[in-house]
Amino acid sequence: MLKIKLGLSEVIAFIFLQGKGGNKPFQSDKPEGFLQVERTLNFHLLPKTVKRRVYALKRLQLQSANIEAKFYEEVHELERKYAGLYQPIFDKRRDFVAGAVEPTEEECEWQSDREEEDLAEDLQKKAALEEKQADSAVADDPKGIPEFWLTIFKRVDMLEEMLQEHDEPILKHLQDITVKFSEPGQPMSFTLEFYFEPNSYFSNTVLTKVYKMKSEPDAADPFSFEGPEIIDCEGCKIDWHKGKDVTIKIVKKKQKHKGRGTVRTVTKEVPQDSFFNFFNPVKASPDGMDEDLDFTLGTDFEIGHFFRERVIPKAVLYFTGEALEDDESVRLLLCVIQDLDDEGEEEDEGDCDPTVSI
Amino acid sequence: MLKIKLGLSEVIAFIFLQGKGGNKPFQSDKPEGFLQVERTLNFHLLPKTVKRRVYALKRLQLQSANIEAKFYEEVHELERKYAGLYQPIFDKRRDFVAGAVEPTEEECEWQSDREEEDLAEDLQKKAALEEKQADSAVADDPKGIPEFWLTIFKRVDMLEEMLQEHDEPILKHLQDITVKFSEPGQPMSFTLEFYFEPNSYFSNTVLTKVYKMKSEPDAADPFSFEGPEIIDCEGCKIDWHKGKDVTIKIVKKKQKHKGRGTVRTVTKEVPQDSFFNFFNPVKASPDGMDEDLDFTLGTDFEIGHFFRERVIPKAVLYFTGEALEDDESVRLLLCVIQDLDDEGEEEDEGDCDPTVSI
Repeated sequence: MLKIKLGLSEVIAFIFLQGKGGNKPFQSDKPEGFLQVERTLNFHLLPKTVKRRVYALKRLQLQSANIEAKFYEEVHELERKYAGLYQPIFDKRRDFVAGAVEPTEEECEWQSDREEEDLAEDLQKKAALEEKQADSAVADDPKGIPEFWLTIFKRVDMLEEMLQEHDEPILKHLQDITVKFSEPGQPMSFTLEFYFEPNSYFSNTVLTKVYKMKSEPDAADPFSFEGPEIIDCEGCKIDWHKGKDVTIKIVKKKQKHKGRGTVRTVTKEVPQDSFFNFFNPVKASPDGMDEDLDFTLGTDFEIGHFFRERVIPKAVLYFTGEALEDDESVRLLLCVIQDLDDEGEEEDEGDCDPTVSI
Repeated sequence: MLKIKLGLSEVIAFIFLQGKGGNKPFQSDKPEGFLQVERTLNFHLLPKTVKRRVYALKRLQLQSANIEAKFYEEVHELERKYAGLYQPIFDKRRDFVAGAVEPTEEECEWQSDREEEDLAEDLQKKAALEEKQADSAVADDPKGIPEFWLTIFKRVDMLEEMLQEHDEPILKHLQDITVKFSEPGQPMSFTLEFYFEPNSYFSNTVLTKVYKMKSEPDAADPFSFEGPEIIDCEGCKIDWHKGKDVTIKIVKKKQKHKGRGTVRTVTKEVPQDSFFNFFNPVKASPDGMDEDLDFTLGTDFEIGHFFRERVIPKAVLYFTGEALEDDESVRLLLCVIQDLDDEGEEEDEGDCDPTVSI
């Protein structure tokens, strides 16, 4: 059955971030700027009396936008309320994943066509399986679901792109990801919390990323209001154990003394790609003119929203792969857009203010 | 400022309707069916004890899906509540458009950079304007905002495609479009109501289109639940005045009598393209195997959702053109997808059940 996901709005967001980056991601079959023409011409040919009435409608439209803002605030309240209802389920998930609690027989009962096929295939794979189990008796009954979150990171393209080889041993210690909504009356935001078991890399037990939102019409452009937008984000300080920080690497450089000609080796730290840079996001360019910066930030907003909307609520479906197919289709769509975007680069006129409505 | 619209979900829906029609609208850089492989392989290599825990997580996921359904029901309630808050604004809009009420000076006050430019251009256009006004003194002060809704139909690609020349004189009599939500406790649905002033084409004062929704996980595929879907729609009978029905045309055919060889002329009615076929939608193919039929219906759902989400709430912005630009970008995106879809046609394996999550 064909399903269309509300959650896909964040992907469209991504499309548009790319689109605005290069302004025209796809070519129009209409003459350049025809909208502008269509728009003003007609309007100017209207009798003054009719123009008056159109202005009256626009004033009414402003009232609608303000009501809409209230609506989205109530939806946010509803999301907070339901976060509470989901929590016991997410807590159980955390305990099963970490191995803190073993599910009862009843809690594990599962039978579906898919699984039946699986069982059939199982037999075929039995040999290979027993082999594998022979290798390591412990693998027979590991604690909880090993590498549950790391597996998800590896499977979801958007996350896998951030993942570096040196991140993997660290993410094996990731035990839960949760989202917390801002309290009522507080500025609207949500916080992603990444819980780690004690490990040899850093002393933090939880790493956080706060996404700040805005849910009111922009005075300068009220009609474009479509609900809450992510407008900023904030990471956290990771207390790396000595020499364990994977976000930097040490490079040695030989330096020759001008006068004496003696050579000495100096070491300096340079940034290194890592998922953990996610907790040290770039800041938006003040004038919104640095497209690369704002594109990076826009992508960060996408990832934050993707964690909140898809990965956290449906983690097991990303682990098993059941949630991947549609996301993959969209992913491929993004590649298409990216290509078209690159082609259209020279037409670039778009501003890059990286806000993402959700 | 970059804006991404929740409302765009309906466009994504459209993308996916097309995507599923041709199943693979865009080419994957990954080997065919790699997801399936990735998915099952990993799962099969898991120790039985771990599989048990994964099944436990899937049972928890079912509980989440049921909570999610309740969430969307509450959102629907919220939409009903806010429909009431918007109504006075929409009533005023209707009265200004129809000319039943003249806005006060205060209600018309409007000044913005755009309008200032407009005024500048105004002067340049003054001559042409005065000419036009000279032509018809009445045009100087017509009633309300003439052809308000027809203009919107002509500007919005999705609607313009349905519009035929013979529809235009009829749609000049369209005075309002509203949406009504189902009462609490009733099956979830929304009804589009098209209000017409008395006219020479049909006797109905309102034409209606009901879109029925479903907001519960599908027992056969609970994990794909993402919120309410349009699952069916129902039009209404248009009481056309004699010879005014634009949805049919009369064709004359000469018939020769086999035996006697006498020739007589017979007339028969054949269907004709018209926007008003919107009120006589096709029925989904029972087995969901007739792709053309289901694609047509899927598109109909899109249009219904587009009326509800975009056209009705922001009509004036479509009239002035201010709402068109983003929709146009998306429109162009759809063209891209359509092209890719056509290329990929032969790979077709997708089912076409035309449901649209909103």
